[in-house]
Amino acid sequence: MTEKKLPFTREFMEEIINNYPTPFHIYDEKCIRENAQRLKQAFSWHPDFKQYFALKATPNPNILKILSDEGFGLDCSSMAELILAEQCGLSGEEVVFSSIVPPAEEFQKARDLGVLISLDDISHIEYLKQVASIPEIMCLRYNPGDLREGNNFLGQQKEAKFGSTRKQLFEGYRILKEMGVKRFGIHTMIGTQVLNPDYMVNNVRMLLNLVSEISNELDIRFEFINIGGGIGIPYHPDERTVDLDYIGKRIKKVYQEKIDSKGLGPLKLFMECGRMITGPSGYLVSRVLHKKNIYKQYIGIDASMANLMRAGMYGEYHHITVLGKETLPQEYKYDVMGSICENNDKFAIDRLLPEIEIGDLIVIHDTGAHGHTMGFNYNGRLRSAELLLRAEGEVLQIRRAETIDDYFSTICYEMIDKGDPTMPILESIKEY
Amino acid sequence: MTEKKLPFTREFMEEIINNYPTPFHIYDEKCIRENAQRLKQAFSWHPDFKQYFALKATPNPNILKILSDEGFGLDCSSMAELILAEQCGLSGEEVVFSSIVPPAEEFQKARDLGVLISLDDISHIEYLKQVASIPEIMCLRYNPGDLREGNNFLGQQKEAKFGSTRKQLFEGYRILKEMGVKRFGIHTMIGTQVLNPDYMVNNVRMLLNLVSEISNELDIRFEFINIGGGIGIPYHPDERTVDLDYIGKRIKKVYQEKIDSKGLGPLKLFMECGRMITGPSGYLVSRVLHKKNIYKQYIGIDASMANLMRAGMYGEYHHITVLGKETLPQEYKYDVMGSICENNDKFAIDRLLPEIEIGDLIVIHDTGAHGHTMGFNYNGRLRSAELLLRAEGEVLQIRRAETIDDYFSTICYEMIDKGDPTMPILESIKEY
Repeated sequence: MTEKKLPFTREFMEEIINNYPTPFHIYDEKCIRENAQRLKQAFSWHPDFKQYFALKATPNPNILKILSDEGFGLDCSSMAELILAEQCGLSGEEVVFSSIVPPAEEFQKARDLGVLISLDDISHIEYLKQVASIPEIMCLRYNPGDLREGNNFLGQQKEAKFGSTRKQLFEGYRILKEMGVKRFGIHTMIGTQVLNPDYMVNNVRMLLNLVSEISNELDIRFEFINIGGGIGIPYHPDERTVDLDYIGKRIKKVYQEKIDSKGLGPLKLFMECGRMITGPSGYLVSRVLHKKNIYKQYIGIDASMANLMRAGMYGEYHHITVLGKETLPQEYKYDVMGSICENNDKFAIDRLLPEIEIGDLIVIHDTGAHGHTMGFNYNGRLRSAELLLRAEGEVLQIRRAETIDDYFSTICYEMIDKGDPTMPILESIKEY
Repeated sequence: MTEKKLPFTREFMEEIINNYPTPFHIYDEKCIRENAQRLKQAFSWHPDFKQYFALKATPNPNILKILSDEGFGLDCSSMAELILAEQCGLSGEEVVFSSIVPPAEEFQKARDLGVLISLDDISHIEYLKQVASIPEIMCLRYNPGDLREGNNFLGQQKEAKFGSTRKQLFEGYRILKEMGVKRFGIHTMIGTQVLNPDYMVNNVRMLLNLVSEISNELDIRFEFINIGGGIGIPYHPDERTVDLDYIGKRIKKVYQEKIDSKGLGPLKLFMECGRMITGPSGYLVSRVLHKKNIYKQYIGIDASMANLMRAGMYGEYHHITVLGKETLPQEYKYDVMGSICENNDKFAIDRLLPEIEIGDLIVIHDTGAHGHTMGFNYNGRLRSAELLLRAEGEVLQIRRAETIDDYFSTICYEMIDKGDPTMPILESIKEY
């Protein structure tokens, strides 16, 4: 059971809305820092632990700056993500880069920044050499296939497109050694939203066994293992926050057994958590515009799938609080819907909530990861602003809401009559 | 069985790519016009047939201009979509507007443009009156609930958020009549990607029965019925194009029986098709960047879910042609994947195709509706350009590809050190 407490009152939120109209995401800096510190604390026994935030979860440089202040590196997988890292002043071994279909320019940028590259496929070794150069430290990504169980999101590992087989790893490290690479890492990332704390422990055990076998066979020394991310968060109040201390202690034991007792150390330990760091810090705040009573009771809000996909697209649970009505009995069953012309544009189905009135503020929890960033512009809907509730109570706008001008910015008006010098297109935008 | 022929050769496509790098969507104007004309032809027996293109399918004003040339109106449901109609020079009864959670400004804009408003809920009558004004012609949207079967996309009608119940329609038209409204329409939209030609016929029968009952009870006269859209297209070669002539003839018969023979006419007939008009005209063209052979064989292309959601998100089939290899035997089983770090970012799973090499051009069919418009920027991926293959063979860029600058345009760099006058952020973008 996780208590879904809010870091703001209705009164405070109405003040915020005076400056920033709904809908928007607001992130709680205190929560982000606490999650970051819990993770670091759980691994404080390791002299070379490093967490690289999976920035696709919350690709806002202001959030990334907070995490870099906490000592985190960044996990990137595209040109835009590499540039985000650069904007935050991070490069070199503060950044890991892994891409499954890398175009040449991404590898070139990754080499320019000197980041740690984890190759998804052994065919990328030759490609990297051709389009850029082979760095002195190299990492390969492992996909265990049938050797590990899948989960609901990624499916069976043997169906997952990521990483290389065991046999390919031996081949890949042999090629890299022949190319003169002296420093090695190994990487895996095989889960997402996993609430079982043993998952990460098993990742470590799996990689340490591999490290031992590959080291012996090829006579190379591994400098790090990157056990990926995937630690889940309690979206539903019935779920529990994953016990990081348990994970840390269990992994310590595995390290002692497989590394220390065999004199195989030092071996750095890397992680790539995203969701568990920022997910619980975020809230999508939206105003109730309409109520509708047909075959079911509906609450129509000013947010939509444009602002948050997870509920509508995947049917995932997001907790909802009606601001100021936290203590009222939850006796009304509603579908909470957005305005997109798709029936899956709903934030909740058959959800028990207090009685809702037009004008109420709806807070959708746990939107701090894979929230805003997965938004789209379907039906001409605009993506919202992002606000940051600083640890000191100040509210910063860290991303502005999209405007109608943004929506039209990539259109080429090739066939629209431009004979009219008053440009009716722009007029209509201005008018709005 | 539908033959999946392409309107271009590999040679012609390579010429296009010299000017516009992959990936991009390209739409075939000839195909769009032919689909539009087939629909008009099927209803040429009706003196007042009007098709309003559901512009959310392909919200590009150049495409909308082609359709307005063909005599189509536009079906809008948001501020951006109303402005798109305005950009194309359409307003008044050339445009229908229907929104399930309308904010005040959308109703105001709809009234400013004098468009036909279809109210989703009877509570919107009072709202429209308060925030704008009640027009002289009004339409309500019907949701038949259990009276009609659902389908795979919209689910059961009684689970669908759209429209009003039968009882509410009687109440709504009574209120509107009391407010002085003299002209009435009725609207439904209850299917999507429906391949059964009787679906539209049944929509007409359902609405005509209602028109008759409501007219009798309230002593009002209906000016139009809007039977919505939802006609499917053959994404899979085993599927067939829906027989529009059959639909037209069957609906004519229903009209004769329910309207003409009872002297209830004239009654305009409106439709809101989207997918069947532009869907088959569009192709997503992408280059093969990598091949990967692990537990399965993968083809990595430079397009991703950022450019087309339907396959990855909904698991829908999109036909794939390897350009220039149309006649080779399809003996290789591949997963065709994009670069996003989600395992559902695949355009095809276990698809039989000719042997594919790096550098080949992959054409993904039927992307002309709900394609580009549903794209997102997850993982820092950019949305592609849209090209139009004119009927005369000219190629026009009707939307440019997003740039890295677009991706960063809404970020507020509040916490990033701006002390450096050389602005490292912009530099990094320029460099790219």
